[in-house]
Amino acid sequence: MTAPRDRLSVIRDRLRGFADERDWHQFHDPKNLAMAIASEAGELLAELRWIRSEDADSVLDEQAKREQIEAEVADIAIALLYFCDRTDIELLAAIERKIEANAANYPVDVSKGLAERPKVDPPADQ
Amino acid sequence: MTAPRDRLSVIRDRLRGFADERDWHQFHDPKNLAMAIASEAGELLAELRWIRSEDADSVLDEQAKREQIEAEVADIAIALLYFCDRTDIELLAAIERKIEANAANYPVDVSKGLAERPKVDPPADQ
Amino acid sequence: MTAPRDRLSVIRDRLRGFADERDWHQFHDPKNLAMAIASEAGELLAELRWIRSEDADSVLDEQAKREQIEAEVADIAIALLYFCDRTDIELLAAIERKIEANAANYPVDVSKGLAERPKVDPPADQ
Amino acid sequence: MTAPRDRLSVIRDRLRGFADERDWHQFHDPKNLAMAIASEAGELLAELRWIRSEDADSVLDEQAKREQIEAEVADIAIALLYFCDRTDIELLAAIERKIEANAANYPVDVSKGLAERPKVDPPADQ
Repeated sequence: MTAPRDRLSVIRDRLRGFADERDWHQFHDPKNLAMAIASEAGELLAELRWIRSEDADSVLDEQAKREQIEAEVADIAIALLYFCDRTDIELLAAIERKIEANAANYPVDVSKGLAERPKVDPPADQ
Repeated sequence: MTAPRDRLSVIRDRLRGFADERDWHQFHDPKNLAMAIASEAGELLAELRWIRSEDADSVLDEQAKREQIEAEVADIAIALLYFCDRTDIELLAAIERKIEANAANYPVDVSKGLAERPKVDPPADQ
Repeated sequence: MTAPRDRLSVIRDRLRGFADERDWHQFHDPKNLAMAIASEAGELLAELRWIRSEDADSVLDEQAKREQIEAEVADIAIALLYFCDRTDIELLAAIERKIEANAANYPVDVSKGLAERPKVDPPADQ
Repeated sequence: MTAPRDRLSVIRDRLRGFADERDWHQFHDPKNLAMAIASEAGELLAELRWIRSEDADSVLDEQAKREQIEAEVADIAIALLYFCDRTDIELLAAIERKIEANAANYPVDVSKGLAERPKVDPPADQ
């Protein structure tokens, strides 16, 4: 009896199959996929660029807008997952490592309330 | 006895705690986080923009470059997870819905080998 | 007696010479330059992502921040000019044509105060 | 008798009038315009992401594709000009200053054939 597949792995396999069936792996080299991630990120920007910051949360309550923004978020994630699959990057491990690095680069005591990286000797490089 | 937390939920909670400790939720409105996603996507582009497509895979084999690119990928994912947390978007569900929509918009028989969306009557809007 | 060169043409020639001297035209294909434009646009986003909208104008009055943002704006423009040079796009003519198209797509009477493209029969595509 | 207006100034004035007539200056704060620049840059990426580098120049010879890419280039430039107008950045002067800074940061002898910034003591900051 095997453990159940985790949901992200199932998604990755579905994406692989999706590209297989359409013979799309030929397009999925690292440069192209990085371009795809950024162009999808641009579409998310387009949804929000003319909305005032204080209105953005309530705009997200409108069903049509919400679905559109969810679709853009999903497009970014899908491109990111294809990028990781092509480059053999284990996404969750990479995130976990980055959170550790960020914890070192943004110590709580000097970062509190400040979004920019503090000018302290960084224990770890970016 | 509760089921073990899935790894992505654990990451989300760590990110929440990270922002809590630093009083960063004030910066995390939807517009700002969309800007963060796109600026991190731009950093990934910067890593790959001058590399020839046919060299990109082998460049990813260089340890230092690989770690840099993993860090950029993680930054995009972290910004995306903060965006989803702020907007109550369930990321995995959004991805699954988008894969369904893409399957309808890119039928295998007319999409094979073609990256652009085919000019057929789309069964689903996009 | 010849007419004085216009300043933008002088800049374009300087950029050409800059790339010539460094043997950089090999990197300047359309995909790479599009990636450069977007990565520089991402750096501009990074300068502004955590600043509140109502604070952005006054932040621009701080000398150091202003110089940084001017540098990012210039980087975007330089990448755009290289793109146009490589692809033989006459930038000013392209802008003029786009303003005409926008005038048709965003009629004053229905667009007043609304940022999104109105849902009217568009006289021109795009 | 006054000197003829240069073409870029004429364009800037047309853009100002365009926004005036539509009451769009309310949307044109620095954050929103930075988002617009990046989202338009993303649209240019979208035009080129699945095209092979070696095919990009010939793709630009196809009339429909060329017009689409010209329109995207123009959109980026228009957003950039609005950004400069709002922030009182003199774009051509900013470009000229950046070319000077780049000349210092990328000395010909050490930069020849190398796209990345050389690891030398930079005479000027970024």
